[in-house]
Amino acid sequence: MTLGASPLSTVLEQFRSSNPTPGGGSAAALAGALGASLLAMVASLPRPRAASDIDLQRLQDAGERTASLAKDLERLIDRDAEAYDLVVNAYRLPKSTDEEKAVRTDRIQAALRVAIDTPMDVMRACAAALDESETVGTLGNANASSDVKVGIELLRAGLRGAQLNVEINLGSVKDRAYADDVVREMQRLSA
Amino acid sequence: MTLGASPLSTVLEQFRSSNPTPGGGSAAALAGALGASLLAMVASLPRPRAASDIDLQRLQDAGERTASLAKDLERLIDRDAEAYDLVVNAYRLPKSTDEEKAVRTDRIQAALRVAIDTPMDVMRACAAALDESETVGTLGNANASSDVKVGIELLRAGLRGAQLNVEINLGSVKDRAYADDVVREMQRLSA
Repeated sequence: MTLGASPLSTVLEQFRSSNPTPGGGSAAALAGALGASLLAMVASLPRPRAASDIDLQRLQDAGERTASLAKDLERLIDRDAEAYDLVVNAYRLPKSTDEEKAVRTDRIQAALRVAIDTPMDVMRACAAALDESETVGTLGNANASSDVKVGIELLRAGLRGAQLNVEINLGSVKDRAYADDVVREMQRLSA
Repeated sequence: MTLGASPLSTVLEQFRSSNPTPGGGSAAALAGALGASLLAMVASLPRPRAASDIDLQRLQDAGERTASLAKDLERLIDRDAEAYDLVVNAYRLPKSTDEEKAVRTDRIQAALRVAIDTPMDVMRACAAALDESETVGTLGNANASSDVKVGIELLRAGLRGAQLNVEINLGSVKDRAYADDVVREMQRLSA
């Protein structure tokens, strides 16, 4: 059963359990999904501050984007746990012969890419939702300003949490051109 | 149905919906529950760095405390939504006569206390879990150091998110002695 389909109590229990997954990467995606959802909620509340048709449209667009990003982030909760398992399974491959060693190295490198690309997607989605926060905060219902601020806190925690998960995997990557690209994009997203 | 008993997808959908609850207060409690759960997970992983009996016991105690705080925070997710409804319902009471006005004022003030005490409990639980993070980070399995860091990020976001929810309600409180006590404790907890 996916984490999305599991009762929230069970999901939290699984985060607490002595299984390494779900771990910090999935938690970061979930924090981002929560933050983006709060922004989407505020964008859809009645009595927005947006008054002109153009501003109402901007607010509605921001609401649709944050709702869509929240759904992307929700999918990344499970994907991060799967990526972790890929890496662990690759490290467990046999390494007795040269051929086995070569296969194992390839598998580890491929798995590391998935384990990096997944939290990178979390960072991208959190950053994209943060880009909408000013529109929602300025044009949404004034009584929900604390919800916008909590949403921002959660998206930032999601972004930083995902970054920590990119960084731990990056050290083991052999393709330095790829690693350099990741570092550059990561710096841009966390700025 | 409580949020804890609902599938995670449904919970996120409810955060996204145009209903004001669950809102930022519940989201802050959930972020805290996630953060405390990650610390509890790291404390229970095999191969801890703790070697002496005393350190192993310290790590186990930290694990039990963070697991228990995570459960407290989980309950606060629903309690925050209930507190919000109390305040809204109190404001909707009739205010045509002096007697109605007096009853309404009393109910609003009582509801505001619940709407302040609930995120204060979230702040207390997040701060208490953060107090355990050094023990878990120093003595827990070294491979899970990023999980500890993500846990800290989430607990801080939960603490700050809860503080925002205390602050928005504090302005309407008439009992200034109570409000001053809350501000003092809030400053201590967020330090």
